[in-house]
Amino acid sequence: MAKEAFTVFEVGPRDGLQNEPVAVPLEDKIAFLNGLLAAGVRNIELGAFVRPDRVPQMADTDEIYRRIESGEIRLGKARAWSLVPNRKGLERALQAGARNIALFTAATDSFARQNIGMSVKASLAEFSGIVADIRSSGKSIHVRGYVSTAFGCPFEGKVNPRKPLKVIEGMLEAGVNEISIGDTIGVATPNQVDLVIKPALRMVGKRSAQKLAGHFHDTRGTALANSLRAIELGVRTLDSSAGGLGGCPFAPGASGNLATEDLVYLLEGMGFRTGIHLHKLCETSAALLSKVFARTNRPIASRYLQSYLASASRTHSCASC
Amino acid sequence: MAKEAFTVFEVGPRDGLQNEPVAVPLEDKIAFLNGLLAAGVRNIELGAFVRPDRVPQMADTDEIYRRIESGEIRLGKARAWSLVPNRKGLERALQAGARNIALFTAATDSFARQNIGMSVKASLAEFSGIVADIRSSGKSIHVRGYVSTAFGCPFEGKVNPRKPLKVIEGMLEAGVNEISIGDTIGVATPNQVDLVIKPALRMVGKRSAQKLAGHFHDTRGTALANSLRAIELGVRTLDSSAGGLGGCPFAPGASGNLATEDLVYLLEGMGFRTGIHLHKLCETSAALLSKVFARTNRPIASRYLQSYLASASRTHSCASC
Repeated sequence: MAKEAFTVFEVGPRDGLQNEPVAVPLEDKIAFLNGLLAAGVRNIELGAFVRPDRVPQMADTDEIYRRIESGEIRLGKARAWSLVPNRKGLERALQAGARNIALFTAATDSFARQNIGMSVKASLAEFSGIVADIRSSGKSIHVRGYVSTAFGCPFEGKVNPRKPLKVIEGMLEAGVNEISIGDTIGVATPNQVDLVIKPALRMVGKRSAQKLAGHFHDTRGTALANSLRAIELGVRTLDSSAGGLGGCPFAPGASGNLATEDLVYLLEGMGFRTGIHLHKLCETSAALLSKVFARTNRPIASRYLQSYLASASRTHSCASC
Repeated sequence: MAKEAFTVFEVGPRDGLQNEPVAVPLEDKIAFLNGLLAAGVRNIELGAFVRPDRVPQMADTDEIYRRIESGEIRLGKARAWSLVPNRKGLERALQAGARNIALFTAATDSFARQNIGMSVKASLAEFSGIVADIRSSGKSIHVRGYVSTAFGCPFEGKVNPRKPLKVIEGMLEAGVNEISIGDTIGVATPNQVDLVIKPALRMVGKRSAQKLAGHFHDTRGTALANSLRAIELGVRTLDSSAGGLGGCPFAPGASGNLATEDLVYLLEGMGFRTGIHLHKLCETSAALLSKVFARTNRPIASRYLQSYLASASRTHSCASC
């Protein structure tokens, strides 16, 4: 029987590196991107058209698109995504030749205000305007919408499922291609996943499950369990970060993004086809982490990668490691 | 609606500490045990009647039972468990006043031979003999059987589900009270959990689900996802280790036992009643880990504990951390 395909959406180079305290030099980032692509990653968020003075880690995003153009970053059939916070960012993105952009809002007003300076409602209006502009430009642009704090908010605590569902509805009306539902601070448990993902799947319709992605953080250890529940419900796209890059800005020292290695191990074990070569991915993550983490003294967040490196560091005849 | 009870079986003081390279002084261990008990732990594996020259970390097990007897370790209504490797161990255990003992074998011959010096078949015969001796002694002793390498073996690789199922059958015939099914090297994915746990539950019968426990290791990040699948199937006892104590002897530097904090967070979030006070547990684990890990330079394995400590280390008004 042919294996069912599963989309692993790699957010390490953007969501991951943006939340690391040290900026990665451009050449290291290019090697990282090429490693991820060579490992089989087909959706990769690699930059953000944000203010370089505010987010220095993403200051090289325009340059990265030039390196794609020049062929130095070997994109092949993969989709390169970038975050666009507003109309100004959209202009830069289109200028740079971006074909896949990600817009961002949250389920809670406090978080949206803190991050994009407007209420959820205002951000959805902005969202609609941006998508309308894109559509009327005639360019073929894929748009991904992020719903942050869909389960819990660092300012408002537990979030009523009606809030993210309203945002998802608004995003669908605005005409986005896909929506990523985020447990930004890693507080969700699988029953909460049910309460948001089940109605969201009903909203997009059974045949359009590919419109929804789950974006789980591992701050309290539940990311892969929540991912499993989302898979059981029918979700076939999950976001993750190579090596578990990223940490949690709301609890410095804690884990953040779900690690791609752990997710791929689970998915392949369960019989899905991710297209990702796990050991190539480990080598790529390890090479980058040795640069980033050497300076931050943070442990490697990916369990699989930890175990891969532990096994690789000794000679043995173990069939399972 | 009353919450459904869930048994969290704490293995940190035995399975955890036994796999740490440094031995914890008796007084620190007593403080650890009292902390766990005060946090609400009701099943606790605290020692092993093994050869002190081979396993120095467990050399104080007889003394620990004396401290229970003297009331210094405040057991209350909790069950204290100890591992018994053979008849000699059983004698010591009964002498010490142990009421709950754990026997150990594996699903694979290579692993059983390496750990207890006999084949699986021979170990099951030994098992039956020991249980028969206990029963004929007239003492009220609870017996737990461990089936190690139920999903994967460090020597034989992937394990055919028929192997652990045969061991489970043998243990039930021998008359054990409960069986813990172990993913000793942390390789399982949820579909493999199905293949072993589903038929095992059929074997014990629907009303006797409490006879089965899941014992998942987090070496590749899948422990909590596998736990979730076991819960979905009807398992209501899971083994875990405070702070994620233990590591993996087959991949030094990698994670081992599922962390109790992460498990309790998941279970309480899902509406189960564990009886465990999560923050008291965190303080207890942190106190012990500061002693053990300061000397081994290993990161804290429990995600929840990491995040608890990260949040506790700063003043903030965050409702969720």
